[in-house]
Amino acid sequence: MLASKLYSPTLREIPSDAEIASHQYMLKAGMIRKNGNGLYSFLPLGRRVELKIEAIVREEMDKTGAQEIMMPIVQPAEIWHESGRWDAYGPEMFKLTDRHDNKYCLGPTHEELITTLVRNELRSYKQLPLTLWQMQNKYRDEIRPRLGLMRSREFVMKDGYSFDADEAGLHQNYQIMYDAYTRVFTRCGLQFKQVEADSGQIGGSHTHEFMALAGAGEAEVVSCSQCDYAADIEKATPAPIEMAAETPGNVELIETPHCATIADLAEFLQIPVEKTIKAVAFNIDGKKTVLCMVRGDHEVNDVAVQNFVGGNAIEPATEEELKAHGLQPGYMSPMDADTPDNETFFVLVDPTAMNVPNGVTGANKLGYHYKNVNAKRDFKNVTVTTIRNMTEGDCCPKCGAPVNIMRGIEVGQVFELGTKYSESLQATFLDQDGKAKPFYMGCYGIGVTRTMAAIIEQYHDEHGIMWPVAVAPYKIAVLPLNMKDEEMASVATDLYETFLAQTPDVVLDDRKERAGVKFNDADLIGYPVQVVVGKDTKTNGTVEVKVRRTGVKEIVPKEQAVARVQEILAELQAKNM
Amino acid sequence: MLASKLYSPTLREIPSDAEIASHQYMLKAGMIRKNGNGLYSFLPLGRRVELKIEAIVREEMDKTGAQEIMMPIVQPAEIWHESGRWDAYGPEMFKLTDRHDNKYCLGPTHEELITTLVRNELRSYKQLPLTLWQMQNKYRDEIRPRLGLMRSREFVMKDGYSFDADEAGLHQNYQIMYDAYTRVFTRCGLQFKQVEADSGQIGGSHTHEFMALAGAGEAEVVSCSQCDYAADIEKATPAPIEMAAETPGNVELIETPHCATIADLAEFLQIPVEKTIKAVAFNIDGKKTVLCMVRGDHEVNDVAVQNFVGGNAIEPATEEELKAHGLQPGYMSPMDADTPDNETFFVLVDPTAMNVPNGVTGANKLGYHYKNVNAKRDFKNVTVTTIRNMTEGDCCPKCGAPVNIMRGIEVGQVFELGTKYSESLQATFLDQDGKAKPFYMGCYGIGVTRTMAAIIEQYHDEHGIMWPVAVAPYKIAVLPLNMKDEEMASVATDLYETFLAQTPDVVLDDRKERAGVKFNDADLIGYPVQVVVGKDTKTNGTVEVKVRRTGVKEIVPKEQAVARVQEILAELQAKNM
Repeated sequence: MLASKLYSPTLREIPSDAEIASHQYMLKAGMIRKNGNGLYSFLPLGRRVELKIEAIVREEMDKTGAQEIMMPIVQPAEIWHESGRWDAYGPEMFKLTDRHDNKYCLGPTHEELITTLVRNELRSYKQLPLTLWQMQNKYRDEIRPRLGLMRSREFVMKDGYSFDADEAGLHQNYQIMYDAYTRVFTRCGLQFKQVEADSGQIGGSHTHEFMALAGAGEAEVVSCSQCDYAADIEKATPAPIEMAAETPGNVELIETPHCATIADLAEFLQIPVEKTIKAVAFNIDGKKTVLCMVRGDHEVNDVAVQNFVGGNAIEPATEEELKAHGLQPGYMSPMDADTPDNETFFVLVDPTAMNVPNGVTGANKLGYHYKNVNAKRDFKNVTVTTIRNMTEGDCCPKCGAPVNIMRGIEVGQVFELGTKYSESLQATFLDQDGKAKPFYMGCYGIGVTRTMAAIIEQYHDEHGIMWPVAVAPYKIAVLPLNMKDEEMASVATDLYETFLAQTPDVVLDDRKERAGVKFNDADLIGYPVQVVVGKDTKTNGTVEVKVRRTGVKEIVPKEQAVARVQEILAELQAKNM
Repeated sequence: MLASKLYSPTLREIPSDAEIASHQYMLKAGMIRKNGNGLYSFLPLGRRVELKIEAIVREEMDKTGAQEIMMPIVQPAEIWHESGRWDAYGPEMFKLTDRHDNKYCLGPTHEELITTLVRNELRSYKQLPLTLWQMQNKYRDEIRPRLGLMRSREFVMKDGYSFDADEAGLHQNYQIMYDAYTRVFTRCGLQFKQVEADSGQIGGSHTHEFMALAGAGEAEVVSCSQCDYAADIEKATPAPIEMAAETPGNVELIETPHCATIADLAEFLQIPVEKTIKAVAFNIDGKKTVLCMVRGDHEVNDVAVQNFVGGNAIEPATEEELKAHGLQPGYMSPMDADTPDNETFFVLVDPTAMNVPNGVTGANKLGYHYKNVNAKRDFKNVTVTTIRNMTEGDCCPKCGAPVNIMRGIEVGQVFELGTKYSESLQATFLDQDGKAKPFYMGCYGIGVTRTMAAIIEQYHDEHGIMWPVAVAPYKIAVLPLNMKDEEMASVATDLYETFLAQTPDVVLDDRKERAGVKFNDADLIGYPVQVVVGKDTKTNGTVEVKVRRTGVKEIVPKEQAVARVQEILAELQAKNM
């Protein structure tokens, strides 16, 4: 490709809503453009990267024997009513109506569709196991699309679905996909962790997320400093922390003006925050009020709360509903509040909060707390269950060593769905005894466009992107510093054409731009290897070969340049760099 | 691929709404399944064919230097308001609303999006020409989706857009795409014609359709029996037909009971239908009534009518509006009717109708016609313009030889849009003099999934599909007649593995099915070459090699089978068979 022909309009000014490196650099380098809120076009460079990731996914899926299909994006409402998810999915699902007033959605996922697609046709245990997959646009009407391709409303996803006769088969298929995903992300050059996760909206039990580790990630990952334990923070269950015993004092009401936050309270009372017991309250599905108590320095894990209580939508509780249960916002605790009925009003206390000796907690009276509270003695009728997030320094649930908390971008997820959808949608097969049984299903997703963003989050510097060779839009850039210089132009063109005979992945920067502009653009776009044809080429017959990722430059006789570049590319690729 | 693993559920009963071969065979062979009205899933065999067509398109686009991009499917309403097409497009456009009450459509086409995408960024004549293209799902809310993939509501389209500084550049780009499309359809094995066409909704002037000739086609194509003239019937302008002169008689009112159709009338009066002048009336945009007069044996070309009168939506006129203009439904003519004002009421007469000597036409009185009508003498204040379809036997407008009328499936279209969208959306570039000018645009579409259907319409017999090698889901099928026979199974497996080492495009039918089932399925699915391993393999060491398209079978020593099959495939492919 000639740079003079390539449509990659670079930007000088980055829009203020582009907060993270991947979003900024893809805009700046002319790889994507925004066409609406959470809606993007992929320009030629961006599209090439996406197609390369798609090709890696396709190759690895082919290796597993999974078969590629393509289901409609527009899905009839009926099948979502059948599974019970039409309403449960909530406002994140784009819905539409056709000219005959029939209802549809833009598929956020395809469990309903795949299940109804195979039901009545995948009939015998002899046809199992079967895995079908597709790669296409998916839709989620995010309330606040942000971070470019990380959280857009239209995005490319690979989604696969496995069908097995029993749980053992499902486990096997799950492992096959787990391994294939590991190969996909490894080949994409990502640094990632497979973490235990919560199954959320999709349903099912056993599930792992593939997390690309990056500061811009929206997820938190718990990772053991010693063993291989890793989990999404939503899933990780911290062990209770023992606290040094004290002689229990008598509960005492104390005035604590202007202490609506735990930090204010600890400061005002001059006590460590670990001696306080903090309250957070939720409403679930508009029906249940849940008061959650954790130690002052801990955070509530709302997924754990939701999993414990049940229901679909969890939101902060309103002041009115709190007061209706005898709770005073800012000064809440189970003390002097209504007795939980565990139907409309729940009080959940984290085990570590139960261990706080002589703690301070809300008195349900504006401006007042209680001190010398010992939950085991003083909290009545509460439910003790782990509802806090793990924190840095907590112990690994597997080996007991301290854990680290890292940020991650969820680029893939594998689920064991079990029989959830095959039962609700009545998709069965006949087993060896001729009995109809529901399929054991698994589902497997890769965020293709999000993977693209995650790669940039991991591989960039202040000058731009540093693509791994396997997914770079072009692998080689030939940069003649002055196209008006006939000899430079001719050496560069010769090199370009020699590369081109071997690979389409080469760009010749034939623009009549200054050398600085060419260097900057090459670094911004992130071609893995740059071959500079400059004055030395004329005087010494050498070119400079620069590796974008390492910054290493070497001087090579121009006759050896092609061979050397191929060698470097092979080395980088072997290291998934 | 092992047939025992392939997910291709065959159907015995074809749904009654599958009327044409492509729809029937794709369902029967398990290539597609319907998930909703006009919404289909592609199963593994169907998806493979589609991916092969996509690969051919991509290769041919790459050769032209056009650059691949990917725009969003969901498009903001604003840009359609800007171009004025939000309302003009009508109910065929799927519209939707997001959670913040913003309006979007599912792109039926992308002129608005591409134009706003490049505006302000494609700035200089130096960047021109530029052609960008994509391949993705498109949406049309057809009032009556039918014919399977031929007229579905979700379909895969390749759409490309060119930008030029002037008309000469546009012509050049148009020709490049015209040639590329010719290569695409040739490689897909289609029999097709490039025909002059009407530009319709998209706008613009110069345009050709690529018509795959097939009886199931919804379009009619006029093709000269001598020269290379070919046009969509909507576009073809027939020459007036001279008729033998007669002495004009006096106009006479005659009673014609039960003669509301031209056939009834000719029968009743015992005159040739060519001696009648027929009326058809339209309403355009709810505002204009248009009475059209053609010779009794001719059909009105409503596109010609609309092009002449202007406006967006053309529909049959209602009885009320006809009567309001003095017209009697069933007995209409300009005689005794209102005088056309050419603003709300038009009377258009085809030149051939003007030539009918002593003809019969409606008297605008129930049960009565006039005879001895000579339009030149008797039709007052009418507009004479060609508004009829060409018919078999009409003369070629280019060379005068008789034309043939054929049916065709529109698989592609190339348009010269000119400045229609760049002007309405204010997309300009700076020319060499520093003046802002609107781009000259072209747009170019291929119906990818429709092409798949068209191929089947052309290549099938009573047993099933006969795929051209280039797009076949698998090129070779190895059919061991009895998998329980160890020798047959082993020879077949060896052959399969030898093929597999050379190409992924091979299937081994390892199912424990009867020979008849395997033959039937292989013919139904349409593998181009079938290698039968049967009893002769055991007795004589030979296999039978059958070419699906030609039906030719040959006996080949098993050791030579692989080489011979490759030879046959190369021969077929060289002939685009």
